[in-house]
Amino acid sequence: MTKTNAGTKTNAGNFFEDFKIGQVIRHATPRTVTAGDVALYQGLFGSRFAVQSSDAFAQAIGYDRSPIDDLLAFHIVFGKTVPDVSLNAIANLGYAGCRFLSPVFVGDTLSTVSEVIGLRENSNGKTGVVYVRSTGYTADGTEVIDYVRWVMVRKRDESAPAPEPVVPTLPKALPADALGDAVPLLDTGEWDNDLAGSPHRFGDYTVGERIDHVDGMTIEEAEHQIATRLYQNTAKVHFNQFYEAQGRNGRRIVYGGYVISLARALTFNGLGNAFHIAAINGGRHVNPTFAHDTIFAWSEILEAGEIPGRSDVGALRVRTIATKNRPCDDFPGADVSGPADPSVVLELDYWVLLPR
Amino acid sequence: MTKTNAGTKTNAGNFFEDFKIGQVIRHATPRTVTAGDVALYQGLFGSRFAVQSSDAFAQAIGYDRSPIDDLLAFHIVFGKTVPDVSLNAIANLGYAGCRFLSPVFVGDTLSTVSEVIGLRENSNGKTGVVYVRSTGYTADGTEVIDYVRWVMVRKRDESAPAPEPVVPTLPKALPADALGDAVPLLDTGEWDNDLAGSPHRFGDYTVGERIDHVDGMTIEEAEHQIATRLYQNTAKVHFNQFYEAQGRNGRRIVYGGYVISLARALTFNGLGNAFHIAAINGGRHVNPTFAHDTIFAWSEILEAGEIPGRSDVGALRVRTIATKNRPCDDFPGADVSGPADPSVVLELDYWVLLPR
Amino acid sequence: MTKTNAGTKTNAGNFFEDFKIGQVIRHATPRTVTAGDVALYQGLFGSRFAVQSSDAFAQAIGYDRSPIDDLLAFHIVFGKTVPDVSLNAIANLGYAGCRFLSPVFVGDTLSTVSEVIGLRENSNGKTGVVYVRSTGYTADGTEVIDYVRWVMVRKRDESAPAPEPVVPTLPKALPADALGDAVPLLDTGEWDNDLAGSPHRFGDYTVGERIDHVDGMTIEEAEHQIATRLYQNTAKVHFNQFYEAQGRNGRRIVYGGYVISLARALTFNGLGNAFHIAAINGGRHVNPTFAHDTIFAWSEILEAGEIPGRSDVGALRVRTIATKNRPCDDFPGADVSGPADPSVVLELDYWVLLPR
Repeated sequence: MTKTNAGTKTNAGNFFEDFKIGQVIRHATPRTVTAGDVALYQGLFGSRFAVQSSDAFAQAIGYDRSPIDDLLAFHIVFGKTVPDVSLNAIANLGYAGCRFLSPVFVGDTLSTVSEVIGLRENSNGKTGVVYVRSTGYTADGTEVIDYVRWVMVRKRDESAPAPEPVVPTLPKALPADALGDAVPLLDTGEWDNDLAGSPHRFGDYTVGERIDHVDGMTIEEAEHQIATRLYQNTAKVHFNQFYEAQGRNGRRIVYGGYVISLARALTFNGLGNAFHIAAINGGRHVNPTFAHDTIFAWSEILEAGEIPGRSDVGALRVRTIATKNRPCDDFPGADVSGPADPSVVLELDYWVLLPR
Repeated sequence: MTKTNAGTKTNAGNFFEDFKIGQVIRHATPRTVTAGDVALYQGLFGSRFAVQSSDAFAQAIGYDRSPIDDLLAFHIVFGKTVPDVSLNAIANLGYAGCRFLSPVFVGDTLSTVSEVIGLRENSNGKTGVVYVRSTGYTADGTEVIDYVRWVMVRKRDESAPAPEPVVPTLPKALPADALGDAVPLLDTGEWDNDLAGSPHRFGDYTVGERIDHVDGMTIEEAEHQIATRLYQNTAKVHFNQFYEAQGRNGRRIVYGGYVISLARALTFNGLGNAFHIAAINGGRHVNPTFAHDTIFAWSEILEAGEIPGRSDVGALRVRTIATKNRPCDDFPGADVSGPADPSVVLELDYWVLLPR
Repeated sequence: MTKTNAGTKTNAGNFFEDFKIGQVIRHATPRTVTAGDVALYQGLFGSRFAVQSSDAFAQAIGYDRSPIDDLLAFHIVFGKTVPDVSLNAIANLGYAGCRFLSPVFVGDTLSTVSEVIGLRENSNGKTGVVYVRSTGYTADGTEVIDYVRWVMVRKRDESAPAPEPVVPTLPKALPADALGDAVPLLDTGEWDNDLAGSPHRFGDYTVGERIDHVDGMTIEEAEHQIATRLYQNTAKVHFNQFYEAQGRNGRRIVYGGYVISLARALTFNGLGNAFHIAAINGGRHVNPTFAHDTIFAWSEILEAGEIPGRSDVGALRVRTIATKNRPCDDFPGADVSGPADPSVVLELDYWVLLPR
């Protein structure tokens, strides 16, 4: 009996020279979102935004029922891209231009398609940067999320020729008129501040205002692993202690999106009426996070935006900084010209919507 | 650009002098219960009561479908009160008079309202005891749970004058005729002891009988954190190892309600037909519980009650003692006149219903 | 007041002499499967088979909607047998002849009945082997799974006489014509390899082919406890660190079925179109697994089977070996005549179906 060797059936992922400008990748695995996903997300992050927590609250203001958390949808859409885009990535360099285009409800089936929109080989000849625009769809073709992500990917063969460099122009921030597509017109007269947990509406925030979100949340290995598998994200560094023990950190790395979700949940204390993430302008995982780290967060209001034609909601552009093992009462990382603070793990620039 | 300082938008919680007799607090965040919550509760506690586990079993005896676990409903209703009532609490002194008034099903949206019914400043002038009656409702206004809780809360300003002391009279135990509102009239002829997992019905228990529930369950950090966030309970001591490391215990404290749920699940082995908690007469968290503790439990039958007009079910008043890291074959804590046993973490006095 | 001693109401489990040939045991507790169970299973194992993940994918090929993972159904059916069959077991000796007879969907209520089909006392007079055939049903009586399991059980009383030995004849492997009952006739023209995550269909595999599944997954205590409680499996060794600390291993043992599920999820990388486990021919837990172990797996194609009358799918008989803390690129445990490899924890011989 002939024994065939291993490896031929296993996905080795794409290397830098496998990507071509304009290439379209239809990712596995489509995923029907369930009430179970929502509960697990709740149990992991403890979010308290009323729109996503209560069908009755959501219906009172104009939704058919509670949409799922914007970031849960993001993580599911994102997770599908990992086996094709970042299995051989050395670094996840950034996100930009992420728009939330339609609400996602329990029962929707999400899939993701990516297009390669940029390629630039590094001067070392060993790696290159790949830019993809990824779009999440429901089964009927409705676009729910799109975003650009760029990652540094290894070359399989260092002698492979470098492609013509193409670097896409990315907006520093999405304009206010690109926001709000995922939110129906709301009857904000029915918005109940008591039930929502905050008396502060859109008009109560000031550009330049800083908010220490006060609370901290400690991460356990089981928690980040469960979340990351829930999203079907297969990045090996999150799951395999046998290999990570031999690596630079000696430990599994927490999926960066886990920290985004924790930070978002922490912002409830201070931004309780910011019920929807309308866009992520940019995000950087400045330092790695590990299990047993305690995450804190603070935010600065960068800009207040009017969405043309909408008097129900206003948009706040927010920069949220998350730290590990360091309270945020003195706003670490605020001075961008100063030395980097090693406790800062996340810088996220995004738009949220609040009722007026 | 003017930078506003932190804290103004963050919930600092209420201090003792913020509470007034008769004050009504409508708590955030309403919460639609889902099949996901039920599964997570199952995964965390391993309950085996057939009524809550099987729609088919529940329907055979007269329910429309399985109600959710009584304690899951309790923890969701309770969790909402934490940001308003106990964020500045030093001690959770007790519960009393907790009634389960209507079954809760997947799809129900729960909210909670509390009324301040008692206030008594302590002689040290630094703290006071606040008594609240909290009521959980569904979206159509149906009351599902009410209970009294008292907590010791810090004063913001020690020079604030003491209020007129008001201490409510609390029943030592609810009378049997206050029980059973959450249970439809059952066709107990359809109750299948094999499927329910116990041959022992109401009439098989004797007042004074003691049952060692034998099994033990070890708690992990991820487990109690997931449960407590599922309930949207925001008490900081359960989540923030950075701060707790500097505190008296050096560790996060497990939410007392987590231990109640574990103890209840352990009682299945010996009380398998006690399908419903009809009331909690009183509960005390005698010692704190931490991750890696193994919980054991034993119970004593205190009283057998007839519910007027019902021949389908009978009520047993039970005292369940839970311990940490100590088996219960010799009934620790039984001798209430003896010295306190430091292994005892919970004393719970409650009514359960069983089929006749 | 008379105090009754403990133990009379508590389930002590069956001992060897309690089992009789032909005895039928109706197990507690029936269990309605929910979307929450599916999400938790997803979060724990990270499976990526498209049929179970996406209603849209399942419907396109001929299912009404996504069935639940075959092993989730198996674990729920199996869990119910533990309190009656293996509470006093010293060793779980094996499984055989496990057939998946009907798809299981969210909303189905599962119960289990076992028949004692073999008994053989060991020569030491202290223990004996019990063989049961267990069958899982839905509420309308549809059989969904049946399998044979044999365990070594303690005698309560060593002087009890040995029963007439009866040892059932078990098939080494189920024949191909016993497979496929749980799968509707598929429209494989609608099978989308991109969405499924693998270009390799039934005809692309060769008998004797070996596949290293490459990825590894580290187990945490919270994870295996949550899974095992989700299945209402009450085996004490998985949950009670207080007792296990005093035992031979010093640690809780991971439920063997947890390792089966992890191994199955790992096989996606190499067997991504093997969407259904049609039968388990045999399984052995060769060594115990503990929290913090990292599980790897490799597979060998043992046989390719044609299912009479079906041109939509073909069957591969696969042997999957799972190891702890040892990569599988050199196929550990392949040489069955060599010395046992202590890193091998699982040997599983089973049939999977793939589209042609």
